[in-house]
Amino acid sequence: MIISMKLHSTRQEIEQVCERIRDFGYKIHAIEGEQRVVIGAVGVGDTTACLESVEAMPQVEKAVRISAPYKFVSKEFHSERTRIRVNGWEIGGDEFIVMAGPCSVESEKQIMQAAEAVAESGAHLLRGGAFKPRTSPYDFQGMETEGLKLLAKAKLATGLGIITEVMSDRDVDLVAEYADILQIGARNMQNFALLKTLGKCSRPVLLKRGMSSTVKELLMSAEYVVAHGNPNVILCERGIRTFETVTRNTCDIAAVAALNELTHLPVILDPSHATGKRSLVPALSRAAVAIGADGLLVEMHPAPEKAMSDGAQSLDIPQFRKMMLDLRPYVDLWKESRVTQAIAAV
Amino acid sequence: MIISMKLHSTRQEIEQVCERIRDFGYKIHAIEGEQRVVIGAVGVGDTTACLESVEAMPQVEKAVRISAPYKFVSKEFHSERTRIRVNGWEIGGDEFIVMAGPCSVESEKQIMQAAEAVAESGAHLLRGGAFKPRTSPYDFQGMETEGLKLLAKAKLATGLGIITEVMSDRDVDLVAEYADILQIGARNMQNFALLKTLGKCSRPVLLKRGMSSTVKELLMSAEYVVAHGNPNVILCERGIRTFETVTRNTCDIAAVAALNELTHLPVILDPSHATGKRSLVPALSRAAVAIGADGLLVEMHPAPEKAMSDGAQSLDIPQFRKMMLDLRPYVDLWKESRVTQAIAAV
Amino acid sequence: MIISMKLHSTRQEIEQVCERIRDFGYKIHAIEGEQRVVIGAVGVGDTTACLESVEAMPQVEKAVRISAPYKFVSKEFHSERTRIRVNGWEIGGDEFIVMAGPCSVESEKQIMQAAEAVAESGAHLLRGGAFKPRTSPYDFQGMETEGLKLLAKAKLATGLGIITEVMSDRDVDLVAEYADILQIGARNMQNFALLKTLGKCSRPVLLKRGMSSTVKELLMSAEYVVAHGNPNVILCERGIRTFETVTRNTCDIAAVAALNELTHLPVILDPSHATGKRSLVPALSRAAVAIGADGLLVEMHPAPEKAMSDGAQSLDIPQFRKMMLDLRPYVDLWKESRVTQAIAAV
Amino acid sequence: MIISMKLHSTRQEIEQVCERIRDFGYKIHAIEGEQRVVIGAVGVGDTTACLESVEAMPQVEKAVRISAPYKFVSKEFHSERTRIRVNGWEIGGDEFIVMAGPCSVESEKQIMQAAEAVAESGAHLLRGGAFKPRTSPYDFQGMETEGLKLLAKAKLATGLGIITEVMSDRDVDLVAEYADILQIGARNMQNFALLKTLGKCSRPVLLKRGMSSTVKELLMSAEYVVAHGNPNVILCERGIRTFETVTRNTCDIAAVAALNELTHLPVILDPSHATGKRSLVPALSRAAVAIGADGLLVEMHPAPEKAMSDGAQSLDIPQFRKMMLDLRPYVDLWKESRVTQAIAAV
Repeated sequence: MIISMKLHSTRQEIEQVCERIRDFGYKIHAIEGEQRVVIGAVGVGDTTACLESVEAMPQVEKAVRISAPYKFVSKEFHSERTRIRVNGWEIGGDEFIVMAGPCSVESEKQIMQAAEAVAESGAHLLRGGAFKPRTSPYDFQGMETEGLKLLAKAKLATGLGIITEVMSDRDVDLVAEYADILQIGARNMQNFALLKTLGKCSRPVLLKRGMSSTVKELLMSAEYVVAHGNPNVILCERGIRTFETVTRNTCDIAAVAALNELTHLPVILDPSHATGKRSLVPALSRAAVAIGADGLLVEMHPAPEKAMSDGAQSLDIPQFRKMMLDLRPYVDLWKESRVTQAIAAV
Repeated sequence: MIISMKLHSTRQEIEQVCERIRDFGYKIHAIEGEQRVVIGAVGVGDTTACLESVEAMPQVEKAVRISAPYKFVSKEFHSERTRIRVNGWEIGGDEFIVMAGPCSVESEKQIMQAAEAVAESGAHLLRGGAFKPRTSPYDFQGMETEGLKLLAKAKLATGLGIITEVMSDRDVDLVAEYADILQIGARNMQNFALLKTLGKCSRPVLLKRGMSSTVKELLMSAEYVVAHGNPNVILCERGIRTFETVTRNTCDIAAVAALNELTHLPVILDPSHATGKRSLVPALSRAAVAIGADGLLVEMHPAPEKAMSDGAQSLDIPQFRKMMLDLRPYVDLWKESRVTQAIAAV
Repeated sequence: MIISMKLHSTRQEIEQVCERIRDFGYKIHAIEGEQRVVIGAVGVGDTTACLESVEAMPQVEKAVRISAPYKFVSKEFHSERTRIRVNGWEIGGDEFIVMAGPCSVESEKQIMQAAEAVAESGAHLLRGGAFKPRTSPYDFQGMETEGLKLLAKAKLATGLGIITEVMSDRDVDLVAEYADILQIGARNMQNFALLKTLGKCSRPVLLKRGMSSTVKELLMSAEYVVAHGNPNVILCERGIRTFETVTRNTCDIAAVAALNELTHLPVILDPSHATGKRSLVPALSRAAVAIGADGLLVEMHPAPEKAMSDGAQSLDIPQFRKMMLDLRPYVDLWKESRVTQAIAAV
Repeated sequence: MIISMKLHSTRQEIEQVCERIRDFGYKIHAIEGEQRVVIGAVGVGDTTACLESVEAMPQVEKAVRISAPYKFVSKEFHSERTRIRVNGWEIGGDEFIVMAGPCSVESEKQIMQAAEAVAESGAHLLRGGAFKPRTSPYDFQGMETEGLKLLAKAKLATGLGIITEVMSDRDVDLVAEYADILQIGARNMQNFALLKTLGKCSRPVLLKRGMSSTVKELLMSAEYVVAHGNPNVILCERGIRTFETVTRNTCDIAAVAALNELTHLPVILDPSHATGKRSLVPALSRAAVAIGADGLLVEMHPAPEKAMSDGAQSLDIPQFRKMMLDLRPYVDLWKESRVTQAIAAV
């Protein structure tokens, strides 16, 4: 921590601050500038509590954390990429992973058609929501357990692994019975009760970035899951909320590259929520491959205009097939660069 | 709903869109402009589903909802102010209500001291967190049940009603045993599982605006609680997340005035989270009274610099007392204007 | 400046950074933490250049400025309130100043009617735009010189001082002939060519905060004007751009209180642009008085529904009169508190 | 335009609104819903003025524009891609154009070294600022005319075209003497006086998106230049301002794809300002190629750690060379897709 004092602080005021910091177990290094005193605090302790305490003191101008507050998920302490095995595939490894399917599971016919299209096109997992977080209480809330059972059927028929959302800590065990990956929606990224429960779950977790969460908060939420016992967390950039309205959200694609520098966890991109517009999904997917994401989470529906949610951002089956085809040369370049990186790391 | 077609849409494309809208039970009014066709849809139905379905059609440029998607909480359908009785006081009525206390319950001594100061200063309810939502898994997570018991003790000693946070649908019954008002934190404003459970609870709910939620989303979340059976919802503006860093959040004070036009529910302001700086709290509190909020939720701590959370934004006891005193003439003007409004409404 | 090194930096890397800092004329204080080294740089020099240079070095994690980069406008170096005399009134002094009038000067009749209403209601200056910054090239661009002449007529008739916008450094001399205060619009807050020219102008400048500018950037822009020779700058909060759409902008009212702590310059609020809705203007104006702004800049039009710009946010004459009346008791409290502050400062 | 009336509007109120709309030259189509009346206005007229006027009427709930307010830059009215010839290259055509160089021109040696590296690496234009917009009046403001002369020397030596910034309408003629492309910085995107002057200039203009400007506002600013006579405008996404701080700005890469749907003008990306971090520039540049941008504007400096501005985001010469090399296979895919698009368009 670095604490800067206000101008004209007295000796006594500075000493009070130093004492407080020492109470938290830190050592003090004071720097006397021409105009003000800056205090460095060195050591290991409860940094947040110390920062908050010191900031509450009247003569303190500013208190800044230097070390990252996350340990388990940071590349500083664990530089090797985390690879997560799911249903025969490896996320974070040498394969660019595509998870696709409808926003909501709506019927047996719909999810079966979707699953077949996903499998045929060479994608790797089937997505589909059984529990749906909806802004309005009057909107379709998902088929719940019935939907999970349909996903299980689709898995049986196609062999595809399943990713589906869980919204409450009460449902974690239920959803984990059916899902290969538990998805946490943007609105629940800081549902800490849920995160703690997921830490005790044996399934991998896909954690979507909250729509107004920073990259560091996303890492802190991942840290919750890992610190509570589950190391298999996949991060997902899905667009943040800004003033721009031409797209549904603003895709912070540079966050993917930034996360690759900060963490060893896999990072994927959801181009459907990021844009909200079907026509922009293929272009953004290409960009995701090129920037080095580990995969995609894409909305695809056999009949988007009849979808019960997110139709405007869902590709139909032919569009999805075409996109998968068009992505191939980019995925080939992606694989080459993974090999180059692996060699460089040796 | 109003649906505008893309330029150069054909008759057949327009007819397909009209058919889809009719399938959802709406009547059609088409407007043929010089350049494009605009379709009006009139009637009652599942507007969200219809909008999403239509937006997913290729020749549709834009689809816009006209009616507000909330009914129970809207002033359009219920113009009279909702007054919520809590422990002898009325929120949304003729009294400006101040809820104050520490961020976290930390010890018996701390919460007792706080409660006494709250009571003596003329404030109305005691706040204090037993379950704490913290960005980091390594930060203090609250005293939980133990904290609730201390709040009960403080109530017994001072007669003050209690407001405290609940973070998971699992804990609603437990917290409702001790609290007069259940507080929902900003990060849980769209925890829909929690909102539904609160709908079945008999205690009033204070719903904090999510840090990147719009006013309309706040109303939709309130609609969840009301539609599930609990009409006693208090809304709370606590600052939104923007690019500005001189304050912890950006207080959207005009939202208070806007909410007063849109809803009959009481609206209060939290100047502590809105600013993150103790020194700005009294000025913002005056502004809240002047703009017509129904009350305040303020952080106050017997020893802010020793607080386990939010010390920098907590007033100490003398500062809180002074603020309560300084607010008096503003509260007097507030009361006068309530009377004037009541007369005007007759 | 405080510079933190990356983990595992070598002695040599640290020494290179120190050398670079010394080149800029600073002294070094290094702090060796358990995990990383933090360097404090003390002295006077070109901080921005040094920060940017050091941040560009590969082993530097973060470089943070400690001292504020503005001097002339900071309260740290000049604690007494700046009072600006304009046409017999003092802005930043003991009077709450209201500047009101239409967005654009549209005709002699319109501006005369407006001016009379402003004068009669007890407001202090007449606002009206002759040069209009419009998003679209097809919208009304203002009456330009003709408009300035009409403002001069209105001044002659009513005795009111004039505030009007200047958009280009080319027009500063022209506008200064007619205006008592030169207004700089939000979109020009960082038009540095214009700011420099204003520094050489003898008229006071009202500087509107850019719609996505921070409080510190607003102060830096004011510093441009003052450093180039013109100490008479009035700051104006007029709402910032966020994701919220229920109001046109989001009024950052706490910025008024924050500015009062950071600078000695007067700060006023524009409730019309901040909300974009006439019905919210009176409530927000009350809040502005209560929080301690030095005045208001309000849009008022004799016939808002016929206005060539900003009609929806303009009060009509009776609404403006009523607002001025309703503000009185709040302004009385404002004056009392100024007296109290003045006594406390002695 | 679509105007929706408030609930319970009377016949007379509706008729008043219709009359107002007719006054602006539009025809009326009213839709009577079960709860409210919606009015469609059809025709050609001053839409902005009409919208503002109608929104100012008390019984109007909402007024929405349907047609885009820009004509010249819209793809709806001109579907063919605009190709801009600059110094032998074509921007918006079959070549992916890279403009690179230092943030500021600092000395003859520096700009010559940079120019040679740009030319050798196969990039197409040299960038370098002579007039610098700086937040602080105390920061380096550029070499001005002297800097322009050095750019001319670099052009002579390498044959590279020059792109450099102009900050004031006063300087347009001067800068146009030396530059092949005039760059407008983010802070000047809505400096309308400058935009009008550029409309009369014969040089192409590169218009950077304002840091809090929407895609539509960017198009409106381009419309200013085109409507005033200069059709050669290049748009540039350079990151927008959000709450995220891990990067300097948030790169809105999907805006590139959205712009490609909305306008025929070329669109390039500036990965240096978008991220503020040198290490993220190559990854984001790959994404820009993949999403279909027409080119890049990149900061490169012979000695970034000695740069007078933007060192932390500037590549050094070897890094730039490596990036250009690594981009090649992506640029090859880009060229193939341009050919495919051209064939599809026939």
